[in-house]
Amino acid sequence: MAETLRERLYTVIFGTDTPAGKLFDVVLIYTILLSVAALMLDSVEGISQHVGLYLKLAEWTFTALFTLEYAIRIYCSPNRWRYISSVYGIVDLLSILPSYLGLFFADVTYLLIIRLLRVLRIFRVLKLIKYLDEANVLIRALFQARRKISVFFFVVMVFATIFGSIMYVVEGPANGFTSIPRSIYWTIVTITTVGYGDITPQTPLGQVVASLAMLTGYSIIAVPTGIVTAELAREMRHDELLIKCPNCGKKGHEHAADYCSRCGSELDNPSED
Amino acid sequence: MAETLRERLYTVIFGTDTPAGKLFDVVLIYTILLSVAALMLDSVEGISQHVGLYLKLAEWTFTALFTLEYAIRIYCSPNRWRYISSVYGIVDLLSILPSYLGLFFADVTYLLIIRLLRVLRIFRVLKLIKYLDEANVLIRALFQARRKISVFFFVVMVFATIFGSIMYVVEGPANGFTSIPRSIYWTIVTITTVGYGDITPQTPLGQVVASLAMLTGYSIIAVPTGIVTAELAREMRHDELLIKCPNCGKKGHEHAADYCSRCGSELDNPSED
Amino acid sequence: MAETLRERLYTVIFGTDTPAGKLFDVVLIYTILLSVAALMLDSVEGISQHVGLYLKLAEWTFTALFTLEYAIRIYCSPNRWRYISSVYGIVDLLSILPSYLGLFFADVTYLLIIRLLRVLRIFRVLKLIKYLDEANVLIRALFQARRKISVFFFVVMVFATIFGSIMYVVEGPANGFTSIPRSIYWTIVTITTVGYGDITPQTPLGQVVASLAMLTGYSIIAVPTGIVTAELAREMRHDELLIKCPNCGKKGHEHAADYCSRCGSELDNPSED
Amino acid sequence: MAETLRERLYTVIFGTDTPAGKLFDVVLIYTILLSVAALMLDSVEGISQHVGLYLKLAEWTFTALFTLEYAIRIYCSPNRWRYISSVYGIVDLLSILPSYLGLFFADVTYLLIIRLLRVLRIFRVLKLIKYLDEANVLIRALFQARRKISVFFFVVMVFATIFGSIMYVVEGPANGFTSIPRSIYWTIVTITTVGYGDITPQTPLGQVVASLAMLTGYSIIAVPTGIVTAELAREMRHDELLIKCPNCGKKGHEHAADYCSRCGSELDNPSED
Repeated sequence: MAETLRERLYTVIFGTDTPAGKLFDVVLIYTILLSVAALMLDSVEGISQHVGLYLKLAEWTFTALFTLEYAIRIYCSPNRWRYISSVYGIVDLLSILPSYLGLFFADVTYLLIIRLLRVLRIFRVLKLIKYLDEANVLIRALFQARRKISVFFFVVMVFATIFGSIMYVVEGPANGFTSIPRSIYWTIVTITTVGYGDITPQTPLGQVVASLAMLTGYSIIAVPTGIVTAELAREMRHDELLIKCPNCGKKGHEHAADYCSRCGSELDNPSED
Repeated sequence: MAETLRERLYTVIFGTDTPAGKLFDVVLIYTILLSVAALMLDSVEGISQHVGLYLKLAEWTFTALFTLEYAIRIYCSPNRWRYISSVYGIVDLLSILPSYLGLFFADVTYLLIIRLLRVLRIFRVLKLIKYLDEANVLIRALFQARRKISVFFFVVMVFATIFGSIMYVVEGPANGFTSIPRSIYWTIVTITTVGYGDITPQTPLGQVVASLAMLTGYSIIAVPTGIVTAELAREMRHDELLIKCPNCGKKGHEHAADYCSRCGSELDNPSED
Repeated sequence: MAETLRERLYTVIFGTDTPAGKLFDVVLIYTILLSVAALMLDSVEGISQHVGLYLKLAEWTFTALFTLEYAIRIYCSPNRWRYISSVYGIVDLLSILPSYLGLFFADVTYLLIIRLLRVLRIFRVLKLIKYLDEANVLIRALFQARRKISVFFFVVMVFATIFGSIMYVVEGPANGFTSIPRSIYWTIVTITTVGYGDITPQTPLGQVVASLAMLTGYSIIAVPTGIVTAELAREMRHDELLIKCPNCGKKGHEHAADYCSRCGSELDNPSED
Repeated sequence: MAETLRERLYTVIFGTDTPAGKLFDVVLIYTILLSVAALMLDSVEGISQHVGLYLKLAEWTFTALFTLEYAIRIYCSPNRWRYISSVYGIVDLLSILPSYLGLFFADVTYLLIIRLLRVLRIFRVLKLIKYLDEANVLIRALFQARRKISVFFFVVMVFATIFGSIMYVVEGPANGFTSIPRSIYWTIVTITTVGYGDITPQTPLGQVVASLAMLTGYSIIAVPTGIVTAELAREMRHDELLIKCPNCGKKGHEHAADYCSRCGSELDNPSED
């Protein structure tokens, strides 16, 4: 069957089954990584001063390539609007837009906007996400647990507000706890066990309250680990339980079962390996 | 049926099923959040100097609103004393009391009391807790594990006392370990992996003991995570096991079972999805 | 039956069933806590200067009480040598010995020994351990996992040696990595996520290696949490599985089972509550 | 049967069943530990200045011993090339090679190479790995989870790039976030909860973003713990399920089962203990 150019392009760019499609994906992944690396190096003062011109050149080459990729993807999509409004389409647009927007703000007076656009350009690292089939189990586990995680966030915030306010009274502005928001920041730094040490309790009472916050907080912060673990364990058990009897089709056989518990046919149990 | 005003108020304020009841809840949640935000901003020096008057005004508006809410809740409760003495009733009272008490201590000589009252006012964030139906699984898991967590706290305290005392001898006051309580504070900061870095071992022997404390402590501190995870996994499994046979009522069928193990009726198994 | 004094003392001091026995235990626990608190306060410079005499007096009172307790325990034990050589007997001896030894080193020239004896006195906090029936599940879980934990320690040490040596080469003495042991100390501080910040990588390459150490280390350090959780989950499942059929005695019924899977008798299943 | 010298050497050096083989292993383990300890001490300035000569002597003795061991292992291996190209063979070679290479760079002008060779010598700690039969469960669990861990690493890197870039814009070079790579380093230090405190957010907005990074990051970083725990739990369950019926050979009996579920023979269930 004679394929049109558009159909052939579609197979290469959106598909992963043909050798050409695989090659395209590999080249694209390396291009993204190189482009992100160039943007990172550009922010290092010593480097940008010496090879800034080359990096600017590289950046425009990458922008041109990604623009071309975006244009071809729109051209060969069977349903164009669906691609453009999909998450991948938006990420693809976002990865080129800031470079063009940067032309309007070349003036040094808009320093913050220039830095903002540089960051937006680096968000093109998100283009890599579509190559993460493997992440499905993790994302499903996190998604299943989204309500519990929201509740956890809320509980942490209430906890941090209470402890932060207490520390504000106990330690006071003289010891670095200059305001309640700053005390809350300290509490979050403490109960997540990050512990920068930029603000630390100085009074004995403050150290007692801080110790309490650490230990209580540690129990609370153990919750997301517990949620994720329990969800992951369930996901894995779920996968195991999908062993189907080749004869009668009964699902959900006990782990390491040799024969179907309904009809006695031998099972093809992968967990035996 | 003709409802009295009191009954209608009760439905709106305590209930969540009617549109008016839902609207009341949403408005209340935002009022609480705004009020807490205003109290936080008031503690930031730069802000309180410029818009302090507006914040004071806002605070009194919020206090008036919460006082009104408290009064109406008492008025329309079928059993007034039960509401007043419930956790929610006490939290509702606590969220307005400090503002009125503050009037008696307007004098700047009672600086500590003023700061204390400000913190007590911020405790009105606890009013939000009644909207946390979702937290039940977490709270149940933590509650089930309360004895184990107490034991864990005790073990950590004994562990911290032993290691803190050793570090006090090894490092001594010259290296920041000025007293045993302070050394214990350092040990808690270390084994919870917070690690501020305000007190650090300086001698080689002290660093060896500290390394030991970190690794041993890490195994001990892994225990609450383990407890919470195991309890959460059990809670989740427990929920799954409540699949009831629609015919004979037998509970506790094996995960992913298709038919009742007692009467053979088909099961409505949600875990198949 | 006429009990001898010795037998009655034994019931009170070693037993926990009689009211007198319970009272004795409670008094002893508070005495231990008070005594440890006094020793801690004694190490705080400001306090020991003002009330040092009272603390010295309290310390000798506590030592006298514990000596009396130790003497009575030996007196009323049915098998004296067994008590003396038991863990509890040794802890009881250790909690009084350092106070008496301190008399021989009252001279200020033996400052280190005096501080060492003070620490040994504080080890009397271990006397509390015998009141921890609840800790059994935790201790059993840790004990079951002792081999895995040893292996984990070993792997961490090998890992820390490798990464510490690499950081010693990459950063060098100029950036605080003055020797390989000190670099290993830094690696342990880093992979346990304590992160004091007293030694930090300064060069870009050092920061890359450090990031690698954090992420790889985090996966390794996740192992003890995993071990403890898996063991605790097994212990809990094990407890559940000990539901015995009151009729035929079959153990190990499926969670939430209503009837014995062998003889059909109704089970007394506590997990239904 | 008359064994040749080569066969007898093989039994002693590669085997662990004979007394001589066990003795050889124990001596080798202590030699490795001593050798690594000597290399570590050599890097401590105060020590290397005083006993540097003895340490150099010890190092050459250890190198001679390991060279002899390597030579004998090659000599008595039934399949020499297989040993040489195995992981253990390469580690054995690596543990002696740097000492000999060091002779060519005795000149002080190649300071970096000398330090590099010292590190490579310390890699002989890896010789210990072959004695870790116990680590099998752990390594199997980590190996089973290798894909999930790779995905996790990738997600963390994307997350760190996004948050690092945002912090670079929010805080800017003035507050220590001098470049995007350095901001990414800060993000990794933060979300792994190491938190050195060498770079910390100074602006209120930066502290809000940092708090978000900590809490979101904490949920992501909980994933490897969850993965390892779930895998370990599966490994342990797998071990339990391998209880075989001594009569009919059916595997996979329910935990704590007393009788085979196929033929009714009594089972030898180790989990009953």
